[in-house]
Amino acid sequence: MTPEAITAVPLTAEAFRPFGDVLEAAGTADMVINGGRCDRFHDRARLTFGSGRAGISIFRSEAVALPCRLDLMERHPIGSQAFLPMTDAPYLVVVAVDEGGRPGPLNAFLAASGQGVNYLAGTWHAPLLALVDGAAFAVVDRIGKGENLEEFALPHGVLIVSEAAENPA
Amino acid sequence: MTPEAITAVPLTAEAFRPFGDVLEAAGTADMVINGGRCDRFHDRARLTFGSGRAGISIFRSEAVALPCRLDLMERHPIGSQAFLPMTDAPYLVVVAVDEGGRPGPLNAFLAASGQGVNYLAGTWHAPLLALVDGAAFAVVDRIGKGENLEEFALPHGVLIVSEAAENPA
Repeated sequence: MTPEAITAVPLTAEAFRPFGDVLEAAGTADMVINGGRCDRFHDRARLTFGSGRAGISIFRSEAVALPCRLDLMERHPIGSQAFLPMTDAPYLVVVAVDEGGRPGPLNAFLAASGQGVNYLAGTWHAPLLALVDGAAFAVVDRIGKGENLEEFALPHGVLIVSEAAENPA
Repeated sequence: MTPEAITAVPLTAEAFRPFGDVLEAAGTADMVINGGRCDRFHDRARLTFGSGRAGISIFRSEAVALPCRLDLMERHPIGSQAFLPMTDAPYLVVVAVDEGGRPGPLNAFLAASGQGVNYLAGTWHAPLLALVDGAAFAVVDRIGKGENLEEFALPHGVLIVSEAAENPA
């Protein structure tokens, strides 16, 4: 069976809000610090860690190529998870709200260089889909006991395509 | 009076350990996830938030040029502070341990693209010294009430020089 195709659109904070936060230096800064040399966009992520604590880990991923076949979604029911690219590395973000314990309709976004995302606890999302091989991401998520990973196999898979260049790197 | 000159050396986890953590995809990963496609360097920052909570903010800074004159150090006594570059943007890190309420001898490091740092609570450090204009950094630090900023004016200033190219970007 041919998988459904979903077109990735540029990531914006407004479109992403039901799923989480876009972390970027965009719009109006909340304060200016360091003698006027630095803009601070303050406290922009809805972080939750349940009974655990915050940790910072580094992910280094192989790249996927566009179009990209996706067979699995996952979520973290008791903690948020933020992905912060550490180099000029665009990546794909595929998310869905929960509908009775499984992902609702999928939404695909193309995150540009300089854009991080924070998934709310419980948001279904694809595993990390880097578009630059070996790209490193800082991940801020929950460290603690208890099962914080649910997976959902997509019955027929989906194909993520992009309106932008097939190789944005 | 001519300011003292300090040479910035390449940032390494070992040299930086008394001051905090280097956050990078280096050495042996702690686990391999996403079906073998992704290395996870797990929980690499000694985070503390005192009576507050973790937050993610974005800093966007003007660049300094090398050699760079530094007149002020600061520290956060009740929380750690991590800087994670979001693009290919080297930056300077200047740190000191505390000696009776003021910075001890200064140490200068050149952080390469892909290297973040986490300052331990109480570590004296320079304000953000980006070497690429407009570079964005994700900052993981304490959100909460209470005074968490101390500053120390360096009586004669210091001059940070680099053995590397004067414009590493």
